[in-house]
Amino acid sequence: MPYVNIKITREGVTADQKARLIQGATQLLVDVLGKNPQTTVVVIDEVDTDNWGIGGESVTLRRARGS
Amino acid sequence: MPYVNIKITREGVTADQKARLIQGATQLLVDVLGKNPQTTVVVIDEVDTDNWGIGGESVTLRRARGS
Amino acid sequence: MPYVNIKITREGVTADQKARLIQGATQLLVDVLGKNPQTTVVVIDEVDTDNWGIGGESVTLRRARGS
Amino acid sequence: MPYVNIKITREGVTADQKARLIQGATQLLVDVLGKNPQTTVVVIDEVDTDNWGIGGESVTLRRARGS
Amino acid sequence: MPYVNIKITREGVTADQKARLIQGATQLLVDVLGKNPQTTVVVIDEVDTDNWGIGGESVTLRRARGS
Amino acid sequence: MPYVNIKITREGVTADQKARLIQGATQLLVDVLGKNPQTTVVVIDEVDTDNWGIGGESVTLRRARGS
Repeated sequence: MPYVNIKITREGVTADQKARLIQGATQLLVDVLGKNPQTTVVVIDEVDTDNWGIGGESVTLRRARGS
Repeated sequence: MPYVNIKITREGVTADQKARLIQGATQLLVDVLGKNPQTTVVVIDEVDTDNWGIGGESVTLRRARGS
Repeated sequence: MPYVNIKITREGVTADQKARLIQGATQLLVDVLGKNPQTTVVVIDEVDTDNWGIGGESVTLRRARGS
Repeated sequence: MPYVNIKITREGVTADQKARLIQGATQLLVDVLGKNPQTTVVVIDEVDTDNWGIGGESVTLRRARGS
Repeated sequence: MPYVNIKITREGVTADQKARLIQGATQLLVDVLGKNPQTTVVVIDEVDTDNWGIGGESVTLRRARGS
Repeated sequence: MPYVNIKITREGVTADQKARLIQGATQLLVDVLGKNPQTTVVVIDEVDTDNWGIGGESVTLRRARGS
């Protein structure tokens, strides 16, 4: 019954990588808390780099600066 | 003042269906808790089927398998 | 498979009212989109009135002012 | 270490405006709580006007009506 | 820089289990996407069983019925 | 109409500090995007330090280590 939300920047993540995130997050809840995987939901949000900030500036600007 | 967030898979939901979700969720808060509809916010997130997992796999794969 | 999150102020909502919110939100997804209720998740967050703001001030202050 | 999520309607917000939201939200956490800006995350979600409801109807309809 | 939110029912999860969820979710992002663990944030929300619904009823009721 | 969610660790934040976060976040949306403060919602979530992870470990452990 757990719900896991993973937010990452939108930078070419493949369907296969998303499948691994879903599988891994679900298995984590099974391993640590014995949760039922059949009702475990994982939602991945991909966020444009203009819309993600850290250190007070967008990831777009950080990438451009080479940080 | 309530805030309702509805997350569903992105599978051709129409503007009319979204309008009914917004109307219904707002009315629910009025009916059950007497909330003011004028300040009740509803946000609908549509999520790609690659990005939604249940049972450890994406909805894309489940749909392909006929689950 | 939908996920619904309802955020309301923490002001004495009863277990019965929460049950009605869960039932109503689930039925809404069934009625409008034909979703399977067995995998529809509803999570209610109750938020202290100090922690909820609207119009630039907390609900605690608004309640005290009679708004 | 704070996490700030700003949800707004998708109506032509520019990269510069997003940068100001990121800068301002980060600075707010520094000013009020002395948080470290280097680990303060800001995520901006832009939501289609069909998917945002207030007063029981979508923002698309409200804009069309001139509200 | 990823942000992971894990929502589970509040049913006696220990600090050690939470530490394992944090460690595991962070490592998952490192393994699958090569993310920097130092800026990966994990937030665990524990939700009262009255406030979590599935199948149209609260987890409290389901537990009482033995589901 | 914007919705702002601020997540911080639960470490003795006062009602006055919360009021300043609400006022500041609301003003930010007014200044940058010209939003109406009367329908701008701010929700502050305080998260136990056991439940917040960064760098693969909980804030509780980081505080104990002096990080």
